[in-house]
Amino acid sequence: MKQYYQFDEWNIIENSFDAHYHEISESICSIGNGYMGQRANFEEQYSGKTLQGSYMAGVYYPDKTRVGWWKNGYPEYFAKVLNSTNWIGININIDGEALDLANAEIGSFSRVLNMKEGTLTRSFTASLANGKQVKVDAIRICSYADKEIGAIRYAITVLNGDAELTINPYLDGDIKNKDSNYDEKFWDAVDSSNTADLATLTIRTRKTGFVYTSAMKFQITQSGQPLSLSPIIENKTKFVGHTVTVSAKANQTTVIEKIVSNVTSRDHNEASLVSVATELLNNAFERGFDTLLAAHIAVWANKWNESDIIVDGDVAAQQGIRFNIFHMHQTYNGEDSRLNIGPKGFTGEKYGGSTYWDTEAYCLPFYLSTADQKIARQLLVYRHNQLERAKENAKKLGFTKGALYPMVTMNGEECHNEWEITFEEIHRNGAIAYAVLDYVRYTGDTSVISEFAIETVYEIARFWEDRVHWAARKGQYVMLGVTGPNEYENNVNNNWYTNRVATWTLEYALELVNFLKTNEPGAYTIWEKQLGITQTELSKWQHIIDNMYFPYDEELGVYLQQDGFLDKELIQVKDLDPSQLPLNQKWSWDRILRSCFIKQADVLQGLFFLGDRYDLETKKRNFDFYEPMTVHESSLSPCVHSILACELGYNEKAYEMYLRTSRLDLDNYNNDTEDGLHITSMAGTWMSVIKGFAGLKIESSTLSFNPFIPEEWKSFSFKVMFRGALLNVQVGANSTHITNESDHAVQVILSGKRIEIPAKQKTTV
Amino acid sequence: MKQYYQFDEWNIIENSFDAHYHEISESICSIGNGYMGQRANFEEQYSGKTLQGSYMAGVYYPDKTRVGWWKNGYPEYFAKVLNSTNWIGININIDGEALDLANAEIGSFSRVLNMKEGTLTRSFTASLANGKQVKVDAIRICSYADKEIGAIRYAITVLNGDAELTINPYLDGDIKNKDSNYDEKFWDAVDSSNTADLATLTIRTRKTGFVYTSAMKFQITQSGQPLSLSPIIENKTKFVGHTVTVSAKANQTTVIEKIVSNVTSRDHNEASLVSVATELLNNAFERGFDTLLAAHIAVWANKWNESDIIVDGDVAAQQGIRFNIFHMHQTYNGEDSRLNIGPKGFTGEKYGGSTYWDTEAYCLPFYLSTADQKIARQLLVYRHNQLERAKENAKKLGFTKGALYPMVTMNGEECHNEWEITFEEIHRNGAIAYAVLDYVRYTGDTSVISEFAIETVYEIARFWEDRVHWAARKGQYVMLGVTGPNEYENNVNNNWYTNRVATWTLEYALELVNFLKTNEPGAYTIWEKQLGITQTELSKWQHIIDNMYFPYDEELGVYLQQDGFLDKELIQVKDLDPSQLPLNQKWSWDRILRSCFIKQADVLQGLFFLGDRYDLETKKRNFDFYEPMTVHESSLSPCVHSILACELGYNEKAYEMYLRTSRLDLDNYNNDTEDGLHITSMAGTWMSVIKGFAGLKIESSTLSFNPFIPEEWKSFSFKVMFRGALLNVQVGANSTHITNESDHAVQVILSGKRIEIPAKQKTTV
Repeated sequence: MKQYYQFDEWNIIENSFDAHYHEISESICSIGNGYMGQRANFEEQYSGKTLQGSYMAGVYYPDKTRVGWWKNGYPEYFAKVLNSTNWIGININIDGEALDLANAEIGSFSRVLNMKEGTLTRSFTASLANGKQVKVDAIRICSYADKEIGAIRYAITVLNGDAELTINPYLDGDIKNKDSNYDEKFWDAVDSSNTADLATLTIRTRKTGFVYTSAMKFQITQSGQPLSLSPIIENKTKFVGHTVTVSAKANQTTVIEKIVSNVTSRDHNEASLVSVATELLNNAFERGFDTLLAAHIAVWANKWNESDIIVDGDVAAQQGIRFNIFHMHQTYNGEDSRLNIGPKGFTGEKYGGSTYWDTEAYCLPFYLSTADQKIARQLLVYRHNQLERAKENAKKLGFTKGALYPMVTMNGEECHNEWEITFEEIHRNGAIAYAVLDYVRYTGDTSVISEFAIETVYEIARFWEDRVHWAARKGQYVMLGVTGPNEYENNVNNNWYTNRVATWTLEYALELVNFLKTNEPGAYTIWEKQLGITQTELSKWQHIIDNMYFPYDEELGVYLQQDGFLDKELIQVKDLDPSQLPLNQKWSWDRILRSCFIKQADVLQGLFFLGDRYDLETKKRNFDFYEPMTVHESSLSPCVHSILACELGYNEKAYEMYLRTSRLDLDNYNNDTEDGLHITSMAGTWMSVIKGFAGLKIESSTLSFNPFIPEEWKSFSFKVMFRGALLNVQVGANSTHITNESDHAVQVILSGKRIEIPAKQKTTV
Repeated sequence: MKQYYQFDEWNIIENSFDAHYHEISESICSIGNGYMGQRANFEEQYSGKTLQGSYMAGVYYPDKTRVGWWKNGYPEYFAKVLNSTNWIGININIDGEALDLANAEIGSFSRVLNMKEGTLTRSFTASLANGKQVKVDAIRICSYADKEIGAIRYAITVLNGDAELTINPYLDGDIKNKDSNYDEKFWDAVDSSNTADLATLTIRTRKTGFVYTSAMKFQITQSGQPLSLSPIIENKTKFVGHTVTVSAKANQTTVIEKIVSNVTSRDHNEASLVSVATELLNNAFERGFDTLLAAHIAVWANKWNESDIIVDGDVAAQQGIRFNIFHMHQTYNGEDSRLNIGPKGFTGEKYGGSTYWDTEAYCLPFYLSTADQKIARQLLVYRHNQLERAKENAKKLGFTKGALYPMVTMNGEECHNEWEITFEEIHRNGAIAYAVLDYVRYTGDTSVISEFAIETVYEIARFWEDRVHWAARKGQYVMLGVTGPNEYENNVNNNWYTNRVATWTLEYALELVNFLKTNEPGAYTIWEKQLGITQTELSKWQHIIDNMYFPYDEELGVYLQQDGFLDKELIQVKDLDPSQLPLNQKWSWDRILRSCFIKQADVLQGLFFLGDRYDLETKKRNFDFYEPMTVHESSLSPCVHSILACELGYNEKAYEMYLRTSRLDLDNYNNDTEDGLHITSMAGTWMSVIKGFAGLKIESSTLSFNPFIPEEWKSFSFKVMFRGALLNVQVGANSTHITNESDHAVQVILSGKRIEIPAKQKTTV
């Protein structure tokens, strides 16, 4: 871990070029708009190590799973977001020599991710082998105002003498995923067209048949004057390009503006893709780069207005927090209910760009608080839309009823690489039900229940009923053969967290049934019929609720992570030789599984989710028991611990845990940032601040804060949206100010005291 | 399951051709000699579905493992016995048309595996599209007298008119393994030579660098006269062939004798391979096919004399038993201590041709009783030779001392496809120690202890010491995270069988230490130093022995397969809908893991191994509890149950279990015989007869029998070798005869009575 990027409140600044850091910076400085994402690759040729990556949300490929011996129920494929047409490419040739930073002598260099405006800029000077010195200033966006448009302005100046520039903007669809399981290519050529004015390229994914058309136009200006061009047209399989040669005087800047539209058959009729792409492109091209940029920046201004966190007195923390918020917004915007949040967003290929329980457990609160509630609602709709697949998934595993949501998915089907996770880590089902509670509790919007969410929760409850069984010897219900959130265990019996969320789901399903019966009897009648709700079934659930087995140790007063946990050798992380960490790099998987060490919050995850059911003493005993055995080797672990530590008054621990995620990628903490960013853990960092330091909760439909400020900070402030109101909360060492920026009065509970803040007023406590 | 092959006491007879059964017959009628093996493929071209297979013992390739996400300690490769040069090929062309049974009209057809003589013969008549009718009679052997020699006599007669025959014997090294993980080829070309007289082909395995040279010669005779030939020579990459064209009169038989030598760098200096192959071949060719055949048959006659089992009154059983004995001898002959017994022998590619614990647990008793003790001894030497690798294997998993033998291996390194098996199914280590006991008890040869076996057992004991740990709450030693022999469980705690063999190993290690101290103090001193034996260590082992936790249920009076087993839903197999069987084809892996159903003997395996420690009542209670939940979906399961059932007087159950293995492959019971034969389970069948029906045991160094005869049989008889004596045991419904065929008197215990049988005498009881 080293501090490589310059500290800055709004920008990520790399101000020299280190080829060893290039792939990391490509991840860090990725840009995206929730529809497409682009790693911070160079426009011009680069023959050094790079992960060229252009990704389109929802365009995936079912790559055949790698298993030793296939067994029934194993996922047949691992879905992968596809590395798609490289639309940024502009090769540059200067007096016959390619501009390639791997072969040039670099003078100055800066790559800057401007988070305020959502732009990636790059400036450098370089000397080529042929002696020519050039200066390049490039800027690009994935437009947040025009989701299908990408725009680049690339300015090149030869500093020492006149030169002939050969400029070759192109679209390259002959792309391979780095993580292809069997080294296959996933795209087939469909069509291309190429005129002097405009080029299009259409490719199609194998198996899934997504069709993807890119269209490109460019103009070249010198001294502000557009040149008249007669490009040489190149039209190969899965590749179209234009080549123009222009003369440039010494110190004369040649500016290339390349505008691209990227459209897919997910959104448009396949037959009309080329015409749609062309129309969108012509429209954007006509508006020009500056206009596109201004519209893009305006969208970002609005996002920051609603979701910024300001830290006073700690630039590194400020930068880290904004970096996380920025990437969250780049990854998901709630406009398309078929999309979700991949653990790496559009910044790399690992984890396949698919949906995990991270969405419900970690990301939902971010979108609930920082955006209109319809965005969070889309995440609930996403799961409901995949309910039939979840029911099929349960059936495939031999269950007779209910829905088991997949561990990893693109389209609702299970597509993880490892059977032990897909079969056993079923606690995910609980988080998907919990998201309904989380949403309704925060927004007060109960309409989702009768519209669809009752069905999601009900079918999940049915799964749990089928998954538990009566253990005659115990005289209780048990759940065998699971893996809890702590993936450093496998196939355990009676994981407390899983038993807990399962039972909670049954309770919540009964609660929703009663809610509808009472409040929306008409809707209830419809659902009663559609779901086939019977009193027998509801009574069975009550019986499970009343008789569920929860492993507990009387002597320690803690819930047991699973049966037999106390048979393990109980060692604390602090007593390990530090050279043994991280365990997942130093120990065999076997040794990890047998050890007591915990990857991420497990029992504590339950105490976090259902925090209002457990008193502080209980939380404290469990925290004190489990946290010392926790290695936090999941990026999702520290945030939960940070939040609980805040609640328990463990201020130092809270800040320590917060630090472990806040600059995880910026400082390449896990040595894997080149693979992409830890997007879903960024939401966890946001939670550490808002639910941890600020202590945000909902108490009886009221927003509640219980602020604490780390010693290292002077103050911090943030905005949250809550039921139509926008609040600006400023936490200082000795006081908290809340400004109600909305048009109506808002009640909040601040450090236990209920107060009302009139519209457009500030309250200080 | 259907009876496809004709019942016959000595032959496996397929007397019509069914293309759907072809790959099954290719497995069934495989021939081999412990050095090489050859599936019953056709010599001439066959364009239908076939698994062409020629395998050389010990020539393997480390194929990269397929895993979703690699974790530390995972096996990096899955070693595979290599499909090698096709040496049997003789393409035939008749008047310009290829002889290909996939395209010809077949008249009569028979394929016969003659188990008495170790030959594969084939006869057929066929009509080609060009109207020519031909008759072929082919016979081939993998010589047991000359291990590197394969010989074929192929006689072809055109029945309706004169014809021009184009005959093309060849060696084809451009071979691929069917089960290549990434569809790669494993052989590179090295060299070839081809003269009118003799062709050689040399290829080399990738990664492992085994070099393999085949040499071939052939002659063609008509009416008993060798033809003088001027073959066209073909010499391509990894292929050499000769093509000759001869004229044949109607009904004149043209006989091709092709002799091949196959040698490898495992046995010879790489530089001399071609000359060694040439010399062996010239020598064999000079002797001629008939002489080679006679020598081969003589070896088989001797093997049958020592190991035959004769069943009177049940031809199907007779055929089944001989089939098993035959293939055991074909797979392993103890001549090379670097070799072992792959689960499929040389009859297919599944399971990689590698060594499993099957060898010690199931195969060793067969070789102990049916061959000179030096053959069984080689199996002990094999493991001892791999001890250093087993110590490395333990180290890789994070253990500080001791040896963990691999689950699957070629060269001592772990190379299974599935982490959950390699990490957890460590009970195999116990079986490897147990083999020493088994060998010494049977042969009385204690020399192995001081020569090397003390080291094997001692290092395994050290592993167990490291693998168990003291569970403070229980006040006992426990062993967490294992899989027992019942692979329908995963990652369980305190598997009774594993705890049992672990503790037994510690006991046996102490016993061997004491044995040496007492009987071979000189050897003990050497080992004490070399192994670093200390009293502290031995005392620690005694402490573990005295304080090991064995899950047991007082109420049922049974050992528990593992912690929490009684929390499962306990259902009996008979109460399952039969359509749900076999579970491994009908149920998801998840459902299987959660169920109580047992794949193969687990607790019962322990009661079988350590049978002298448990009384009949204990065995009965455990058998009655576990057998009804056992689905016997491992081919290794029924034999142990059959043996225990005999002991418990459950005669019907014993015979039922016996039937499940005896004709497993012949009747394609598991629908997978096309992949190869279940070689190691064949040893189990042999045990069912000898240890089950005949009740063979060793009691205080004396051979003991407790015979029982299934109602379906009139009598059965078998030979066993024991400490230099050869006994012929005949079991009838009312009497048992034992003939001592050796030169010295032998004591036996027959149905509890000790008797002495003088040399060359028969005793009847």
